[in-house]
Amino acid sequence: MVMAKMVSAGLVLAGAKGNGGAEGAVTISQFGLPNGLDVVVIPDHRTPVVTHMIWYRAGAADEPRGKTGIAHFLEHLMFKGTKAHPEGEFSRTVAELGGEENAFTSSDYTAYFQRVAKEHLRTMMEFEADRMRGLVLTDAIVDPEREVVLEERRMRTDSVPVSQLGEAMTATAFVNHPYGAPIIGWKPEIEALNRADALAFYQRFYAPNNAILVVAGDVEPAEVKALAEDTYGKALPTPDLPLRMRAKEPQPVAARKVVLSDRRVEQPLLQRMYLAPSYATAKPGEAEALDVLAQAMGAQSTGRLNQRLVLERKLAVSASAWYAGTALDDHLFGIYAVPAQEVSLEQLEAALDEVLAEMAQGGFSDAELKRAKTRLVADAIYQRDSQSALARNFGAALTTGLTAAQVIEWPRLIERVSGEEVKEAFRWLEKKRSVTGYLTGTAS
Amino acid sequence: MVMAKMVSAGLVLAGAKGNGGAEGAVTISQFGLPNGLDVVVIPDHRTPVVTHMIWYRAGAADEPRGKTGIAHFLEHLMFKGTKAHPEGEFSRTVAELGGEENAFTSSDYTAYFQRVAKEHLRTMMEFEADRMRGLVLTDAIVDPEREVVLEERRMRTDSVPVSQLGEAMTATAFVNHPYGAPIIGWKPEIEALNRADALAFYQRFYAPNNAILVVAGDVEPAEVKALAEDTYGKALPTPDLPLRMRAKEPQPVAARKVVLSDRRVEQPLLQRMYLAPSYATAKPGEAEALDVLAQAMGAQSTGRLNQRLVLERKLAVSASAWYAGTALDDHLFGIYAVPAQEVSLEQLEAALDEVLAEMAQGGFSDAELKRAKTRLVADAIYQRDSQSALARNFGAALTTGLTAAQVIEWPRLIERVSGEEVKEAFRWLEKKRSVTGYLTGTAS
Repeated sequence: MVMAKMVSAGLVLAGAKGNGGAEGAVTISQFGLPNGLDVVVIPDHRTPVVTHMIWYRAGAADEPRGKTGIAHFLEHLMFKGTKAHPEGEFSRTVAELGGEENAFTSSDYTAYFQRVAKEHLRTMMEFEADRMRGLVLTDAIVDPEREVVLEERRMRTDSVPVSQLGEAMTATAFVNHPYGAPIIGWKPEIEALNRADALAFYQRFYAPNNAILVVAGDVEPAEVKALAEDTYGKALPTPDLPLRMRAKEPQPVAARKVVLSDRRVEQPLLQRMYLAPSYATAKPGEAEALDVLAQAMGAQSTGRLNQRLVLERKLAVSASAWYAGTALDDHLFGIYAVPAQEVSLEQLEAALDEVLAEMAQGGFSDAELKRAKTRLVADAIYQRDSQSALARNFGAALTTGLTAAQVIEWPRLIERVSGEEVKEAFRWLEKKRSVTGYLTGTAS
Repeated sequence: MVMAKMVSAGLVLAGAKGNGGAEGAVTISQFGLPNGLDVVVIPDHRTPVVTHMIWYRAGAADEPRGKTGIAHFLEHLMFKGTKAHPEGEFSRTVAELGGEENAFTSSDYTAYFQRVAKEHLRTMMEFEADRMRGLVLTDAIVDPEREVVLEERRMRTDSVPVSQLGEAMTATAFVNHPYGAPIIGWKPEIEALNRADALAFYQRFYAPNNAILVVAGDVEPAEVKALAEDTYGKALPTPDLPLRMRAKEPQPVAARKVVLSDRRVEQPLLQRMYLAPSYATAKPGEAEALDVLAQAMGAQSTGRLNQRLVLERKLAVSASAWYAGTALDDHLFGIYAVPAQEVSLEQLEAALDEVLAEMAQGGFSDAELKRAKTRLVADAIYQRDSQSALARNFGAALTTGLTAAQVIEWPRLIERVSGEEVKEAFRWLEKKRSVTGYLTGTAS
């Protein structure tokens, strides 16, 4: 048995200022249980509620080859009951206690959460700890749920051209890394997923030494620690937990284009994705510069893309940018633009490339940079007013190779990004690193 | 111990007619050893030589995720010696006996062959049987060989724009199936391959029950059987040999384009690849129709593409088509076209699409079909004059899910393909199933 690594971090999170939220600092606590469970406690005493989340360091990118969709499918099956608590009991209890619950699967993690009145925290922890190791699956449970997932895929992806385009672009953006597969899975593989696949993934990854407990709300760290020891503390760790080594993405050499033509499309769309480092893979400051770049380029109304493409040249009705930096491996920087009436996607793309060249060459003004950074920092600070958003930030960071300290430091690092660093970030926006997507209503 | 499955097939292969080759039929023999080794013997008494090939049902598509290149890397390492025969001894022996040797790795198989005077067949079988199970690898052997492979990659792919384009297109054509990865492997993964990876792949796949011995030449089946029992017969089979279940490729929904721009490119090129069934996955007759289609469309001088694009419209200096149907899973149908001076790739692509539409709508004339089929059948018959080509045909077929009987039947099935079936094959040539590639000398 390992010694309890009571490494209470005592990380200080600056409170939201001047927006009616709690003034001043909050101390985040972080510690571990002997069975390897990491725990993060975020005190928030404004209301007598708690957000209880369990995060597994296992997502779609950790799936075995040929089993795309199993991480998400298992997330569905986690609501199917255990020996101690048969199907539906957990959800019914949450509802009866007036709480909310949900779960989500990403490429790098799977998480389950409940939000309840603080006195019910122990109950939630008991239920959640029970299903960490005690899930019961039979074919009678698994087979109909597979139909539910296939229907989810039909509804959300196969019937939605913009989702199909996004899926095809992502698959094209990553030639080798499992980020190229949709989280819900490829249809012919979902169809073949079975109970044995679900149990194998569950037994491999669902363990205290592969999980992070995040509790935010009207509680104290000592209280959470005692409850965690009583509940999760009983779960046995998985020996020889495998390292998260994924297939490696080679450096891209050719610009790619994906054209999705569907009669149902009424609003054409232009998208671009570039392979870019994530916070976990970037050199210090690089990921922050990409975040500032996405904001300076893509912010609503004041972003450069909106200025040039929408306001000045009237080629687009909207234009934005995003950076998906919260990822264990290299991920994507993206651009969206919706063409104005009578403007072809080819015209819009040519104009986009001109604006990109202009920015890469001339960079941004001090005012643009200041606006971008202020926006990013303000969003982060305002987000701290949402208990669940805050808890989610920490869970996502800790499951993608970052530390709680990095989450807390982030606004300060954003403030430090220089104009030169933002200009340098254009090295990731070379055409040959990109996939361009066209969504059109007619065959193109 | 399993009973020897002496299933001598007695398959009759029609000899090449009227080209100076052996007149009349040849009887192919096929049988198995108790340890699971499949044996094919192709008598060819024209010269006193034999072609000795061992084929493993293991190729790049059988690699574990994250280990692209290990099948090919192992092929290199197979020349590094065993306990019985240290490095260089096998190759030296082949050379001293005046023979030739080689090896090749594909997505679905890896094969080793020697061509020697018939009296040396036993020696070859002894050496080859010895390295089936007895390979010795140390880091001192593996590490420098990895540099050799990386240099091979640099020479053949990274420094050759047309190879880079092919690699990027193939990676785009397959979003999930391992056929999307280059056989030589992705560079960052080759760099990480080590002795343990090579041995794991070797121990998993190199076994008599995962191999096919093909001997063509001046020998009789009974003689080969006796030799095989004495040599390969001693190799122990691998218990619980895994099924070759690869990740499934979803049906494509979006047309894709890949643009490789490189200053070194002097001759631009247009390529197109469509996901299509293989002989192993197609319904009866479909793959044969795709072969006839590739020929009718792409044959030198008389093919429809050459007629329209080169001779009539003078937009291209050459245009051809290919079908890679010998594969365990769905594979590719492709088109190449080299633009004439002053013709842009966009112009050429538009014209290609017109010709494709014309053919899909109107099909081919009886004369065109007859020419295509005659050419395919003639090529197959002429190929039978080459001992090693013949042996290679059988090995490739048997490692990609086909039977010796299918190889022998093939010309007859090609003759039977109807014009209607060729027209129907255009269902696989929908734009959304395709990747179009541009090779250009300037940024595009």
